[in-house]
Amino acid sequence: MMNMENYKHKIQYYETDKMGITHHSNYVRIMEETRVDMMEKLGYGYDRMEAEGIISPVMNVSLDYRKPTTYPDIVEVELSVLEMSRFKVKFAYKMTVGDTLVCSATSTHCFLNKQGRPVTLQESCPDLDEAFSALRQEVDNAKN
Amino acid sequence: MMNMENYKHKIQYYETDKMGITHHSNYVRIMEETRVDMMEKLGYGYDRMEAEGIISPVMNVSLDYRKPTTYPDIVEVELSVLEMSRFKVKFAYKMTVGDTLVCSATSTHCFLNKQGRPVTLQESCPDLDEAFSALRQEVDNAKN
Amino acid sequence: MMNMENYKHKIQYYETDKMGITHHSNYVRIMEETRVDMMEKLGYGYDRMEAEGIISPVMNVSLDYRKPTTYPDIVEVELSVLEMSRFKVKFAYKMTVGDTLVCSATSTHCFLNKQGRPVTLQESCPDLDEAFSALRQEVDNAKN
Amino acid sequence: MMNMENYKHKIQYYETDKMGITHHSNYVRIMEETRVDMMEKLGYGYDRMEAEGIISPVMNVSLDYRKPTTYPDIVEVELSVLEMSRFKVKFAYKMTVGDTLVCSATSTHCFLNKQGRPVTLQESCPDLDEAFSALRQEVDNAKN
Repeated sequence: MMNMENYKHKIQYYETDKMGITHHSNYVRIMEETRVDMMEKLGYGYDRMEAEGIISPVMNVSLDYRKPTTYPDIVEVELSVLEMSRFKVKFAYKMTVGDTLVCSATSTHCFLNKQGRPVTLQESCPDLDEAFSALRQEVDNAKN
Repeated sequence: MMNMENYKHKIQYYETDKMGITHHSNYVRIMEETRVDMMEKLGYGYDRMEAEGIISPVMNVSLDYRKPTTYPDIVEVELSVLEMSRFKVKFAYKMTVGDTLVCSATSTHCFLNKQGRPVTLQESCPDLDEAFSALRQEVDNAKN
Repeated sequence: MMNMENYKHKIQYYETDKMGITHHSNYVRIMEETRVDMMEKLGYGYDRMEAEGIISPVMNVSLDYRKPTTYPDIVEVELSVLEMSRFKVKFAYKMTVGDTLVCSATSTHCFLNKQGRPVTLQESCPDLDEAFSALRQEVDNAKN
Repeated sequence: MMNMENYKHKIQYYETDKMGITHHSNYVRIMEETRVDMMEKLGYGYDRMEAEGIISPVMNVSLDYRKPTTYPDIVEVELSVLEMSRFKVKFAYKMTVGDTLVCSATSTHCFLNKQGRPVTLQESCPDLDEAFSALRQEVDNAKN
């Protein structure tokens, strides 16, 4: 069973705007940091994936901003695999500062080979497919 | 009747990533540029709104990435008011490069006074409320 | 003789920070926008240069921040070629908002071929070399 | 005597550009992260300084780019106080990836009170002045 530690992002001064809060575009970057970190912990960083000829474009992101954050908040991100199909994976992100939910979000990704054609994760990166499935299981288990 | 010209954003080199395409987080910034530009054309820039004591936080953004873009593409953005309620307004963004749809997106906003309490746009910024309503009408008319 | 129009950059809301001013890192990006714009006006965009197998890394940047700017200022940038040698070119940037000097800066660049070896601009991109030299002349003439 | 651990910055995917390397503007942000981190370790974060009514604008930055970096490099930054005068402080940054020097840089800062008038660090933030002086001493000692 996997036991993934939450990712932590310290809000930087340059991420704030003149409203005094973290600019909302930066949460999309925090989501990427979290995915990348998770994949590295699974032994499967973007660099390895790219070396194997697979790229994984973002198809959709959706973010609900609940509470503003600002420098020097530490945003903690809980990542889970929400849905998996043959060609797509959808992640959910729960971002908190202390006990406060500040943003909840999702992102959907597909996988393309060097020719730009969609590939199944199962065939192109079976290890990653298995790891994501395990994370997916956890979500199911947590619900029951 | 309003006749708003589409906003144009030139993709900058620093907005690309090592995949060779515009990093997906930048589209959230292009959305903001478009809103800001529209409000200025309506004679109601963020600076005027802030001077009148109103701030307008983003509650949600959702983006569907259709086709990658890269430097030196010119992204053209068609903005419309999708929904208006007493306390919220939802914008739709259709981004194209030439004839190609590259991203479609929405964003939802509310309006807060200096005390951080939600205010209706109609009471706090009646001019802006009227302008948004006019943009809303156009969407309805275009549908019929 | 060349007559280059100054580049204009509108400060965006997302470029400000919680101090209420444009974050200082963004001026480095405005410098790049200006170079890119100048090269495109010369008919020699980064995309063409890259298509011809030349990349032009930044070796140094130096910026003196004179006055803060903020949204919605329009920063006007006057670019000139300060120095040219066989392998390097150094640009100077004078950034103003209205009549106020807000930032003065320089950047130095070299040119590498696909093997990562330094090349002379004269041999690799003679058109660009000539155009830069003409800009360099103007600076000399303006001094006399 | 102080013994400051070097700051570490993991290069993120969104910090790279289509040349495949970290965009040069991001090093200015890494410099800020390093300063902020150092001040927090000294018990004197930007938030405390701002709460005490002092802001510290950047007057100059200068960066020499030695070697490119990219995702997923870890950039380690050694910060030192290069010069201190009544109204200004100048920091030096030595950035390495492993044993390779990738960027060396400096930044100069002044200190302003709420009225925007320059203040001496010694009078406005004596604790910070003392801490910087100690860091300054170390540089001197290291030289001898």
